[in-house]
Amino acid sequence: MPSLILVRHGQSQWNLENRFTGWWDVDLTEKGVAEAKAAGELLAATGLLPTIAFTSLQTRAIKTLHLALEACGRLWIPETKDWHLNERHYGGLTGLNKAETAAKHGEDQVKVWRRSFDVPPPVLEAGSEYDLSADPRYAGLAVPTTESLKLTIERVLPYWEATILPELAKGQTVIVSAHGNSLRALVKHLSGISDEDITGLEIPTGEPIVYDFDDKMLAGERHYLKDR
Amino acid sequence: MPSLILVRHGQSQWNLENRFTGWWDVDLTEKGVAEAKAAGELLAATGLLPTIAFTSLQTRAIKTLHLALEACGRLWIPETKDWHLNERHYGGLTGLNKAETAAKHGEDQVKVWRRSFDVPPPVLEAGSEYDLSADPRYAGLAVPTTESLKLTIERVLPYWEATILPELAKGQTVIVSAHGNSLRALVKHLSGISDEDITGLEIPTGEPIVYDFDDKMLAGERHYLKDR
Repeated sequence: MPSLILVRHGQSQWNLENRFTGWWDVDLTEKGVAEAKAAGELLAATGLLPTIAFTSLQTRAIKTLHLALEACGRLWIPETKDWHLNERHYGGLTGLNKAETAAKHGEDQVKVWRRSFDVPPPVLEAGSEYDLSADPRYAGLAVPTTESLKLTIERVLPYWEATILPELAKGQTVIVSAHGNSLRALVKHLSGISDEDITGLEIPTGEPIVYDFDDKMLAGERHYLKDR
Repeated sequence: MPSLILVRHGQSQWNLENRFTGWWDVDLTEKGVAEAKAAGELLAATGLLPTIAFTSLQTRAIKTLHLALEACGRLWIPETKDWHLNERHYGGLTGLNKAETAAKHGEDQVKVWRRSFDVPPPVLEAGSEYDLSADPRYAGLAVPTTESLKLTIERVLPYWEATILPELAKGQTVIVSAHGNSLRALVKHLSGISDEDITGLEIPTGEPIVYDFDDKMLAGERHYLKDR
Protein backbone atom coordinates (compact mmCIF):
# COMPACT_ATOMS: atom_id res chain seq x y z
CA MET A 1 0.00 0.00 0.00
CA PRO A 2 1.33 3.43 -0.86
CA SER A 3 2.24 5.64 2.08
CA LEU A 4 2.93 9.33 2.40
CA ILE A 5 5.34 10.62 5.03
CA LEU A 6 5.26 14.34 5.83
CA VAL A 7 8.13 15.87 7.77
CA ARG A 8 8.34 19.49 8.81
CA HIS A 9 11.97 20.64 8.91
CA GLY A 10 13.74 20.61 12.25
CA GLN A 11 14.12 23.79 14.30
CA SER A 12 15.66 26.65 12.32
CA GLN A 13 17.61 29.61 13.63
CA TRP A 14 14.59 31.84 13.15
CA ASN A 15 12.17 29.36 14.71
CA LEU A 16 14.42 29.71 17.75
CA GLU A 17 14.43 33.52 17.53
CA ASN A 18 10.67 33.57 16.91
CA ARG A 19 11.01 35.54 13.67
CA PHE A 20 8.78 35.30 10.62
CA THR A 21 10.86 33.37 8.09
CA GLY A 22 8.76 32.43 5.07
CA TRP A 23 10.90 32.22 1.97
CA TRP A 24 14.03 33.56 3.67
CA ASP A 25 16.69 30.87 3.67
CA VAL A 26 17.65 30.09 7.25
CA ASP A 27 19.73 27.14 8.43
CA LEU A 28 18.82 24.47 10.99
CA THR A 29 19.98 24.84 14.58
CA GLU A 30 21.82 21.97 16.28
CA LYS A 31 18.48 20.97 17.77
CA GLY A 32 16.98 21.02 14.27
CA VAL A 33 19.74 18.73 12.98
CA ALA A 34 19.07 16.31 15.85
CA GLU A 35 15.32 16.39 15.12
CA ALA A 36 15.93 15.57 11.46
CA LYS A 37 18.19 12.63 12.33
CA ALA A 38 15.66 11.37 14.88
CA ALA A 39 12.95 11.47 12.21
CA GLY A 40 15.08 9.23 9.99
CA GLU A 41 15.90 6.89 12.87
CA LEU A 42 12.18 6.50 13.52
CA LEU A 43 11.62 5.60 9.85
CA ALA A 44 14.37 2.99 10.13
CA ALA A 45 13.00 1.61 13.42
CA THR A 46 9.45 1.27 12.07
CA GLY A 47 10.61 -0.04 8.69
CA LEU A 48 8.68 2.65 6.83
CA LEU A 49 11.38 3.34 4.26
CA PRO A 50 10.77 6.04 1.64
CA THR A 51 11.39 5.20 -2.00
CA ILE A 52 11.09 8.75 -3.44
CA ALA A 53 11.49 12.22 -1.93
CA PHE A 54 10.17 15.73 -2.48
CA THR A 55 11.31 18.91 -0.80
CA SER A 56 11.30 22.69 -1.22
CA LEU A 57 14.08 24.94 -2.49
CA GLN A 58 14.90 25.98 1.06
CA THR A 59 18.01 24.82 2.92
CA ARG A 60 16.24 23.88 6.16
CA ALA A 61 13.89 21.46 4.41
CA ILE A 62 16.54 20.03 2.07
CA LYS A 63 18.96 19.42 4.95
CA THR A 64 16.20 17.86 7.03
CA LEU A 65 15.50 15.51 4.13
CA HIS A 66 19.14 14.57 3.68
CA LEU A 67 19.73 13.98 7.39
CA ALA A 68 16.57 11.89 7.72
CA LEU A 69 17.35 9.84 4.58
CA GLU A 70 20.89 9.19 5.74
CA ALA A 71 19.63 8.04 9.14
CA CYS A 72 17.36 5.45 7.51
CA GLY A 73 19.86 4.32 4.85
CA ARG A 74 17.95 5.88 1.97
CA LEU A 75 20.18 8.73 0.83
CA TRP A 76 20.16 7.11 -2.63
CA ILE A 77 16.44 7.51 -3.43
CA PRO A 78 15.42 10.03 -6.13
CA GLU A 79 14.70 13.50 -4.81
CA THR A 80 12.98 16.50 -6.37
CA LYS A 81 13.27 20.03 -5.02
CA ASP A 82 10.53 22.45 -6.00
CA TRP A 83 9.50 25.94 -4.96
CA HIS A 84 5.83 24.89 -4.79
CA LEU A 85 6.68 23.21 -1.47
CA ASN A 86 8.29 26.36 -0.02
CA GLU A 87 7.01 27.89 3.20
CA ARG A 88 4.25 30.51 3.01
CA HIS A 89 5.74 33.88 2.05
CA TYR A 90 5.25 36.20 5.02
CA GLY A 91 5.62 39.39 2.99
CA GLY A 92 6.59 42.47 4.97
CA LEU A 93 6.68 40.49 8.22
CA THR A 94 9.76 38.57 7.04
CA GLY A 95 12.60 38.98 9.51
CA LEU A 96 10.50 40.53 12.29
CA ASN A 97 10.18 38.78 15.64
CA LYS A 98 6.92 38.64 17.54
CA ALA A 99 7.69 41.68 19.72
CA GLU A 100 8.83 43.79 16.75
CA THR A 101 5.75 42.85 14.76
CA ALA A 102 3.41 43.70 17.64
CA ALA A 103 5.17 47.02 18.19
CA LYS A 104 4.94 47.88 14.49
CA HIS A 105 1.43 46.65 13.66
CA GLY A 106 -0.37 46.02 16.99
CA GLU A 107 -1.04 42.64 18.60
CA ASP A 108 -4.55 42.28 17.24
CA GLN A 109 -3.45 42.83 13.66
CA VAL A 110 -0.65 40.29 14.05
CA LYS A 111 -3.15 37.76 15.36
CA VAL A 112 -5.27 38.32 12.24
CA TRP A 113 -2.32 37.67 9.93
CA ARG A 114 -1.18 34.59 11.87
CA ARG A 115 -4.62 33.06 12.20
CA SER A 116 -6.55 34.26 9.17
CA PHE A 117 -7.03 31.85 6.29
CA ASP A 118 -7.11 34.37 3.49
CA VAL A 119 -5.73 37.72 4.68
CA PRO A 120 -2.13 38.08 3.52
CA PRO A 121 0.33 40.23 5.47
CA PRO A 122 1.53 43.49 3.86
CA VAL A 123 3.73 42.93 0.83
CA LEU A 124 7.48 42.74 1.09
CA GLU A 125 8.71 45.97 -0.46
CA ALA A 126 10.99 45.73 -3.49
CA GLY A 127 14.58 46.35 -2.47
CA SER A 128 14.01 45.05 1.05
CA GLU A 129 16.96 43.13 2.43
CA TYR A 130 14.67 40.09 2.26
CA ASP A 131 13.72 40.58 -1.40
CA LEU A 132 14.49 37.31 -3.19
CA SER A 133 13.37 38.31 -6.67
CA ALA A 134 16.97 38.30 -7.92
CA ASP A 135 17.92 35.04 -6.20
CA PRO A 136 19.12 32.62 -8.92
CA ARG A 137 17.19 29.76 -7.33
CA TYR A 138 13.99 31.54 -8.35
CA ALA A 139 15.13 32.51 -11.83
CA GLY A 140 12.14 32.66 -14.16
CA LEU A 141 9.65 32.71 -11.28
CA ALA A 142 7.58 35.68 -10.14
CA VAL A 143 8.52 35.41 -6.47
CA PRO A 144 5.44 36.19 -4.33
CA THR A 145 5.56 39.39 -2.33
CA THR A 146 3.21 37.98 0.33
CA GLU A 147 0.94 34.96 0.78
CA SER A 148 -2.06 34.03 2.88
CA LEU A 149 -2.47 30.38 3.81
CA LYS A 150 -5.11 30.25 1.08
CA LEU A 151 -2.63 31.44 -1.54
CA THR A 152 -0.08 28.94 -0.25
CA ILE A 153 -2.57 26.11 -0.69
CA GLU A 154 -3.37 27.32 -4.20
CA ARG A 155 0.20 26.64 -5.31
CA VAL A 156 0.86 23.52 -3.20
CA LEU A 157 -2.18 21.49 -4.28
CA PRO A 158 -1.68 21.65 -8.07
CA TYR A 159 1.87 20.40 -7.48
CA TRP A 160 0.55 17.64 -5.24
CA GLU A 161 -1.94 16.55 -7.87
CA ALA A 162 0.42 16.74 -10.83
CA THR A 163 3.65 15.46 -9.35
CA ILE A 164 3.43 13.77 -5.94
CA LEU A 165 0.11 11.89 -6.13
CA PRO A 166 1.09 10.07 -9.35
CA GLU A 167 4.14 8.64 -7.55
CA LEU A 168 1.93 7.36 -4.73
CA ALA A 169 -0.37 5.86 -7.33
CA LYS A 170 2.62 3.88 -8.63
CA GLY A 171 2.96 2.35 -5.17
CA GLN A 172 5.85 4.46 -3.97
CA THR A 173 6.48 5.36 -0.33
CA VAL A 174 6.77 9.12 -0.65
CA ILE A 175 8.52 11.43 1.81
CA VAL A 176 7.83 15.19 1.67
CA SER A 177 10.19 17.34 3.71
CA ALA A 178 8.71 20.82 3.85
CA HIS A 179 7.33 23.62 6.02
CA GLY A 180 4.57 24.38 8.51
CA ASN A 181 2.25 25.94 5.95
CA SER A 182 3.04 23.94 2.83
CA LEU A 183 2.37 20.83 4.94
CA ARG A 184 -0.82 22.38 6.35
CA ALA A 185 -1.98 22.66 2.74
CA LEU A 186 -1.55 18.91 2.26
CA VAL A 187 -3.04 17.96 5.65
CA LYS A 188 -6.07 20.22 5.04
CA HIS A 189 -6.67 18.52 1.71
CA LEU A 190 -6.09 14.94 2.84
CA SER A 191 -7.87 15.16 6.19
CA GLY A 192 -10.68 17.45 5.00
CA ILE A 193 -10.04 20.20 7.55
CA SER A 194 -12.07 23.42 7.34
CA ASP A 195 -10.65 26.84 6.48
CA GLU A 196 -11.32 27.93 10.08
CA ASP A 197 -9.66 24.96 11.76
CA ILE A 198 -6.57 24.62 9.59
CA THR A 199 -4.97 27.87 10.73
CA GLY A 200 -4.85 26.57 14.30
CA LEU A 201 -3.42 23.17 13.43
CA GLU A 202 0.22 22.94 14.47
CA ILE A 203 2.60 20.72 12.52
CA PRO A 204 5.42 19.78 14.92
CA THR A 205 9.03 19.94 13.66
CA GLY A 206 10.80 16.69 12.84
CA GLU A 207 7.77 14.50 13.70
CA PRO A 208 6.84 12.26 10.75
CA ILE A 209 3.13 12.28 9.91
CA VAL A 210 1.88 9.32 7.88
CA TYR A 211 -1.08 8.71 5.58
CA ASP A 212 -1.69 5.26 4.13
CA PHE A 213 -3.65 5.11 0.87
CA ASP A 214 -6.09 2.43 -0.20
CA ASP A 215 -6.37 0.92 -3.65
CA LYS A 216 -8.69 3.73 -4.74
CA MET A 217 -5.98 6.21 -3.68
CA LEU A 218 -8.05 7.51 -0.80
CA ALA A 219 -6.04 8.65 2.20
CA GLY A 220 -6.69 6.95 5.53
CA GLU A 221 -6.44 8.58 8.95
CA ARG A 222 -3.55 10.89 9.62
CA HIS A 223 -1.27 9.62 12.35
CA TYR A 224 2.12 10.31 13.86
CA LEU A 225 4.63 7.64 13.05
CA LYS A 226 5.80 7.58 16.68
CA ASP A 227 2.30 6.36 17.67
CA ARG A 228 2.29 3.47 15.25
CA MET B 1 29.98 28.98 -21.66
CA PRO B 2 28.99 25.61 -20.22
CA SER B 3 31.36 24.13 -17.67
CA LEU B 4 31.73 20.67 -16.23
CA ILE B 5 32.99 20.19 -12.68
CA LEU B 6 34.16 16.72 -11.68
CA VAL B 7 34.63 15.91 -8.01
CA ARG B 8 35.85 12.60 -6.66
CA HIS B 9 34.31 11.90 -3.26
CA GLY B 10 36.35 12.78 -0.17
CA GLN B 11 38.30 10.10 1.70
CA SER B 12 36.16 7.11 2.68
CA GLN B 13 36.70 4.69 5.53
CA TRP B 14 38.00 2.07 3.10
CA ASN B 15 40.24 4.52 1.25
CA LEU B 16 41.82 5.02 4.66
CA GLU B 17 42.09 1.26 5.28
CA ASN B 18 43.36 0.66 1.75
CA ARG B 19 40.61 -1.84 0.94
CA PHE B 20 39.00 -2.44 -2.46
CA THR B 21 35.59 -0.80 -2.17
CA GLY B 22 33.86 -0.69 -5.55
CA TRP B 23 30.09 -0.82 -5.14
CA TRP B 24 30.23 -1.47 -1.40
CA ASP B 25 28.64 1.47 0.40
CA VAL B 26 31.18 3.02 2.73
CA ASP B 27 30.87 6.36 4.50
CA LEU B 28 33.22 9.35 4.38
CA THR B 29 35.84 9.80 7.10
CA GLU B 30 36.09 13.13 8.93
CA LYS B 31 38.87 14.01 6.53
CA GLY B 32 36.56 13.13 3.63
CA VAL B 33 33.86 15.44 5.01
CA ALA B 34 36.40 18.25 5.28
CA GLU B 35 37.59 17.62 1.71
CA ALA B 36 34.01 17.80 0.40
CA LYS B 37 33.35 21.08 2.20
CA ALA B 38 36.66 22.50 0.94
CA ALA B 39 35.65 21.61 -2.62
CA GLY B 40 32.43 23.60 -2.20
CA GLU B 41 34.27 26.52 -0.63
CA LEU B 42 36.58 26.60 -3.64
CA LEU B 43 33.58 26.70 -5.98
CA ALA B 44 32.20 29.63 -3.97
CA ALA B 45 35.55 31.44 -3.91
CA THR B 46 36.06 31.12 -7.66
CA GLY B 47 32.42 31.87 -8.45
CA LEU B 48 32.04 28.68 -10.49
CA LEU B 49 28.59 27.81 -9.17
CA PRO B 50 26.92 24.61 -10.38
CA THR B 51 23.35 24.79 -11.69
CA ILE B 52 22.65 21.05 -11.93
CA ALA B 53 24.16 18.00 -10.22
CA PHE B 54 24.72 14.32 -10.96
CA THR B 55 26.01 11.67 -8.61
CA SER B 56 26.07 7.91 -8.08
CA LEU B 57 23.87 5.78 -5.81
CA GLN B 58 26.69 5.54 -3.28
CA THR B 59 26.67 7.36 0.04
CA ARG B 60 30.23 8.68 -0.16
CA ALA B 61 29.56 10.46 -3.47
CA ILE B 62 26.08 11.72 -2.52
CA LYS B 63 27.35 13.13 0.78
CA THR B 64 30.31 14.74 -0.95
CA LEU B 65 27.87 16.39 -3.35
CA HIS B 66 25.61 17.65 -0.57
CA LEU B 67 28.47 18.99 1.54
CA ALA B 68 30.04 20.74 -1.45
CA LEU B 69 26.72 22.23 -2.60
CA GLU B 70 25.94 23.48 0.89
CA ALA B 71 29.36 25.10 1.14
CA CYS B 72 28.76 27.04 -2.08
CA GLY B 73 25.11 27.91 -1.34
CA ARG B 74 23.71 25.64 -4.05
CA LEU B 75 21.96 22.90 -2.09
CA TRP B 76 18.80 23.81 -4.00
CA ILE B 77 19.93 22.85 -7.51
CA PRO B 78 18.37 19.77 -9.15
CA GLU B 79 20.27 16.56 -8.51
CA THR B 80 20.09 13.14 -10.14
CA LYS B 81 21.51 9.98 -8.60
CA ASP B 82 22.27 7.13 -10.97
CA TRP B 83 24.08 3.79 -10.75
CA HIS B 84 25.86 4.46 -14.05
CA LEU B 85 28.14 6.82 -12.10
CA ASN B 86 28.98 4.21 -9.45
CA GLU B 87 32.57 3.17 -8.79
CA ARG B 88 34.05 0.30 -10.78
CA HIS B 89 32.88 -3.02 -9.28
CA TYR B 90 35.97 -4.78 -7.90
CA GLY B 91 34.36 -8.21 -7.90
CA GLY B 92 35.96 -10.74 -5.56
CA LEU B 93 38.53 -8.19 -4.39
CA THR B 94 35.81 -6.18 -2.62
CA GLY B 95 36.62 -5.80 1.06
CA LEU B 96 40.23 -7.00 0.81
CA ASN B 97 43.08 -4.71 1.72
CA LYS B 98 46.31 -4.60 -0.26
CA ALA B 99 48.16 -7.05 1.97
CA GLU B 100 45.28 -9.55 2.01
CA THR B 101 44.93 -9.35 -1.76
CA ALA B 102 48.64 -9.91 -2.32
CA ALA B 103 48.68 -12.84 0.10
CA LYS B 104 45.68 -14.41 -1.62
CA HIS B 105 46.48 -13.77 -5.27
CA GLY B 106 50.17 -12.74 -5.44
CA GLU B 107 51.52 -9.22 -5.95
CA ASP B 108 51.99 -9.53 -9.69
CA GLN B 109 48.41 -10.60 -10.27
CA VAL B 110 47.11 -7.71 -8.13
CA LYS B 111 49.16 -5.28 -10.17
CA VAL B 112 47.55 -6.67 -13.36
CA TRP B 113 44.05 -6.12 -11.98
CA ARG B 114 44.85 -2.65 -10.70
CA ARG B 115 46.60 -1.48 -13.81
CA SER B 116 45.04 -3.42 -16.65
CA PHE B 117 42.50 -1.68 -18.83
CA ASP B 118 40.38 -4.69 -19.70
CA VAL B 119 41.14 -7.56 -17.31
CA PRO B 120 38.44 -7.72 -14.65
CA PRO B 121 39.20 -9.19 -11.20
CA PRO B 122 37.59 -12.53 -10.27
CA VAL B 123 33.81 -12.30 -9.87
CA LEU B 124 32.21 -11.65 -6.52
CA GLU B 125 30.66 -14.97 -5.54
CA ALA B 126 26.90 -15.05 -5.00
CA GLY B 127 26.12 -15.07 -1.30
CA SER B 128 29.31 -13.18 -0.45
CA GLU B 129 28.85 -10.68 2.39
CA TYR B 130 29.47 -8.01 -0.26
CA ASP B 131 26.81 -9.31 -2.67
CA LEU B 132 24.49 -6.38 -3.43
CA SER B 133 22.12 -8.14 -5.82
CA ALA B 134 19.29 -7.97 -3.24
CA ASP B 135 19.95 -4.33 -2.25
CA PRO B 136 16.73 -2.37 -2.94
CA ARG B 137 18.71 0.51 -4.41
CA TYR B 138 19.60 -1.78 -7.32
CA ALA B 139 16.13 -3.27 -7.73
CA GLY B 140 15.56 -4.20 -11.38
CA LEU B 141 19.27 -3.99 -12.22
CA ALA B 142 21.60 -6.88 -12.93
CA VAL B 143 24.31 -5.83 -10.48
CA PRO B 144 27.73 -6.53 -12.02
CA THR B 145 29.81 -9.26 -10.40
CA THR B 146 33.07 -7.64 -11.50
CA GLU B 147 34.22 -4.85 -13.83
CA SER B 148 37.38 -3.88 -15.65
CA LEU B 149 37.98 -0.19 -16.28
CA LYS B 150 36.87 -0.90 -19.86
CA LEU B 151 33.52 -2.27 -18.66
CA THR B 152 33.13 0.71 -16.33
CA ILE B 153 33.64 3.09 -19.23
CA GLU B 154 31.12 1.16 -21.30
CA ARG B 155 28.35 2.02 -18.85
CA VAL B 156 29.50 5.54 -17.89
CA LEU B 157 29.81 6.95 -21.42
CA PRO B 158 26.30 6.14 -22.68
CA TYR B 159 24.93 7.87 -19.56
CA TRP B 160 27.20 10.83 -20.20
CA GLU B 161 26.01 11.12 -23.80
CA ALA B 162 22.31 10.63 -23.06
CA THR B 163 21.89 12.53 -19.82
CA ILE B 164 24.76 14.79 -18.78
CA LEU B 165 25.99 16.20 -22.11
CA PRO B 166 22.50 17.49 -23.08
CA GLU B 167 22.44 19.58 -19.86
CA LEU B 168 25.80 21.10 -20.73
CA ALA B 169 24.49 21.82 -24.21
CA LYS B 170 21.69 23.85 -22.60
CA GLY B 171 24.35 26.03 -20.99
CA GLN B 172 24.23 24.52 -17.53
CA THR B 173 27.18 24.42 -15.15
CA VAL B 174 27.20 20.72 -14.34
CA ILE B 175 28.77 19.14 -11.26
CA VAL B 176 29.41 15.39 -11.19
CA SER B 177 30.28 13.93 -7.81
CA ALA B 178 31.51 10.41 -8.36
CA HIS B 179 34.37 7.93 -8.02
CA GLY B 180 37.96 7.33 -9.14
CA ASN B 181 37.04 5.06 -12.03
CA SER B 182 33.72 6.54 -13.16
CA LEU B 183 35.53 9.89 -13.37
CA ARG B 184 38.47 8.28 -15.20
CA ALA B 185 35.92 7.20 -17.80
CA LEU B 186 34.89 10.82 -18.37
CA VAL B 187 38.43 12.20 -18.29
CA LYS B 188 39.62 9.55 -20.76
CA HIS B 189 36.83 10.49 -23.14
CA LEU B 190 37.12 14.27 -22.77
CA SER B 191 40.91 14.50 -22.75
CA GLY B 192 41.50 11.73 -25.31
CA ILE B 193 43.73 9.60 -23.07
CA SER B 194 44.90 6.19 -24.33
CA ASP B 195 43.85 2.86 -22.83
CA GLU B 196 47.41 2.40 -21.55
CA ASP B 197 47.73 5.80 -19.91
CA ILE B 198 44.31 6.07 -18.27
CA THR B 199 44.92 3.29 -15.75
CA GLY B 200 47.80 5.25 -14.25
CA LEU B 201 45.97 8.57 -14.05
CA GLU B 202 45.09 9.41 -10.46
CA ILE B 203 41.99 11.49 -9.71
CA PRO B 204 42.60 13.15 -6.33
CA THR B 205 39.77 13.16 -3.75
CA GLY B 206 37.84 16.38 -3.23
CA GLU B 207 39.80 18.33 -5.87
CA PRO B 208 37.42 19.86 -8.45
CA ILE B 209 38.50 19.25 -12.06
CA VAL B 210 37.01 21.61 -14.64
CA TYR B 211 36.36 21.42 -18.36
CA ASP B 212 35.00 24.44 -20.22
CA PHE B 213 33.10 23.74 -23.45
CA ASP B 214 33.07 25.88 -26.57
CA ASP B 215 30.02 26.68 -28.67
CA LYS B 216 30.51 23.47 -30.65
CA MET B 217 30.40 21.58 -27.33
CA LEU B 218 34.05 20.62 -27.58
CA ALA B 219 35.80 20.29 -24.24
CA GLY B 220 38.80 22.53 -23.58
CA GLU B 221 41.85 21.62 -21.51
CA ARG B 222 41.30 19.80 -18.25
CA HIS B 223 42.41 21.80 -15.26
CA TYR B 224 42.20 21.81 -11.50
CA LEU B 225 39.95 24.54 -10.20
CA LYS B 226 42.54 25.45 -7.56
CA ASP B 227 44.95 26.42 -10.34
CA ARG B 228 42.54 28.76 -12.04
